[in-house]
Amino acid sequence: MTGDVIASRDNPRIKRLRRLAHEGGAYRREGQVWVEGDHLCAAALAQGHRPEAVIVTPAGMHWVERWRREGGLAADVPVWTVTDAVMGHISPLESPPSVACLLPLAEGTSVRPDVPTVVLDRLQDPGNVGSILRSAAAFGFAQVIALRATAALWSPKVLRAGMGAHFGLHLVEGADAAAVEALRVPLIATSSHQGAWLHTARLPWPCAWLFGHEGQGVDLRWMARATTTVRIIQPGGQESLNVAAAAAICLHASAVSAFGGL
Amino acid sequence: MTGDVIASRDNPRIKRLRRLAHEGGAYRREGQVWVEGDHLCAAALAQGHRPEAVIVTPAGMHWVERWRREGGLAADVPVWTVTDAVMGHISPLESPPSVACLLPLAEGTSVRPDVPTVVLDRLQDPGNVGSILRSAAAFGFAQVIALRATAALWSPKVLRAGMGAHFGLHLVEGADAAAVEALRVPLIATSSHQGAWLHTARLPWPCAWLFGHEGQGVDLRWMARATTTVRIIQPGGQESLNVAAAAAICLHASAVSAFGGL
Repeated sequence: MTGDVIASRDNPRIKRLRRLAHEGGAYRREGQVWVEGDHLCAAALAQGHRPEAVIVTPAGMHWVERWRREGGLAADVPVWTVTDAVMGHISPLESPPSVACLLPLAEGTSVRPDVPTVVLDRLQDPGNVGSILRSAAAFGFAQVIALRATAALWSPKVLRAGMGAHFGLHLVEGADAAAVEALRVPLIATSSHQGAWLHTARLPWPCAWLFGHEGQGVDLRWMARATTTVRIIQPGGQESLNVAAAAAICLHASAVSAFGGL
Repeated sequence: MTGDVIASRDNPRIKRLRRLAHEGGAYRREGQVWVEGDHLCAAALAQGHRPEAVIVTPAGMHWVERWRREGGLAADVPVWTVTDAVMGHISPLESPPSVACLLPLAEGTSVRPDVPTVVLDRLQDPGNVGSILRSAAAFGFAQVIALRATAALWSPKVLRAGMGAHFGLHLVEGADAAAVEALRVPLIATSSHQGAWLHTARLPWPCAWLFGHEGQGVDLRWMARATTTVRIIQPGGQESLNVAAAAAICLHASAVSAFGGL
């Protein structure tokens, strides 16, 4: 599979890869995710993911050799070598990567009821969603549940912003009330005007944190299910924080309460 | 000034506004900042800024009337009425605003040596920079110093991500070593592998926090000047946090130590 270099944009495989790389929701139809760049590919391999194929330019072959040598990449995973021009055609990035991989999308993602969880309610900005996934992974959360109308978790933009966090988390998309009801851990919400101050609150562990839409916040029907509501001290005035910033503060506070030895 | 509606894209004023709205660094040449949307304009007026002009479509005139009535907008500030098509030509947004204003850029922004400060070292992503400005304002910081090669603070993208935080902060751009040396408050840096745990550290107030480039972190020459180094607990493993997420956690911890009554 490594002998020929694909030089044509009209190759059906290339057309499909370009759709996956450019369209935020294409992975849902195709059941495959485009993962680009050596950092993201290495993160996926390190978490035990097996690509359906590795796509590489001649300049990126050293990555394939290294990953095969160090055990992350099985010898029988197909490698498709493409020209720089074809990689530039597939990738939406100004500086296209020298290596990428095609991952099968894990199906049947049912909710794990007892693990530390983050619930996202209609977050729109891919950068915010990716940042929250990174914070969730860093602070010991195992699962992220995206309620309907949240940005597509495996879209290329969210993947890039997630910097590899996706591959270590249990991700559930398109979730509805049943997903929230399935959780057996306490649900915590943030508010700008009520609840205990986060920095003095006793936080349960494991728990599930709820973060909402950039403009509208968390839908009231989810707020009503929260067992705890906390608020973040803001001595500078009534500024509202960016939702990913607020999430980082909350998830860090959870990690300190669970692992900080205070 | 409110009688005529500007319907031509060739109007020299319109050409200049389009440059300001589209080019991240154009404000440095022009000495003026394009501030778009009712939220950002209202935030600027609330902080006492006086626009050189308000640019409005017929649908946005109620904002002008309201701001004049409620005192934020002086009666002698010129109002340029434009057609929806012209506003769409000026603005880079998919949904152009119905109102915007042109603010003079504050010049001669020398460092205030004794106030709570955030120092940005070559941060690149406008969303990250805007998010950090919001966190700084929310947590009682008065000044943000952007060292050379940091994203342009008053660019349209950073302004949008800042959600109005710009107007309440003292902002210094293009700063060099002299700016850092001018600070008389303790300089705090974050590290992934050394220093006290943030959640147990005693933090000075006022202080200056140092945050660095998304990939490379803080330059070693600035790290060497830090009087305190702290690190953030990450029980999930060696994931690195998004820099705006890390900044939110640190600035919140500062606010708690100064104002949290613990």
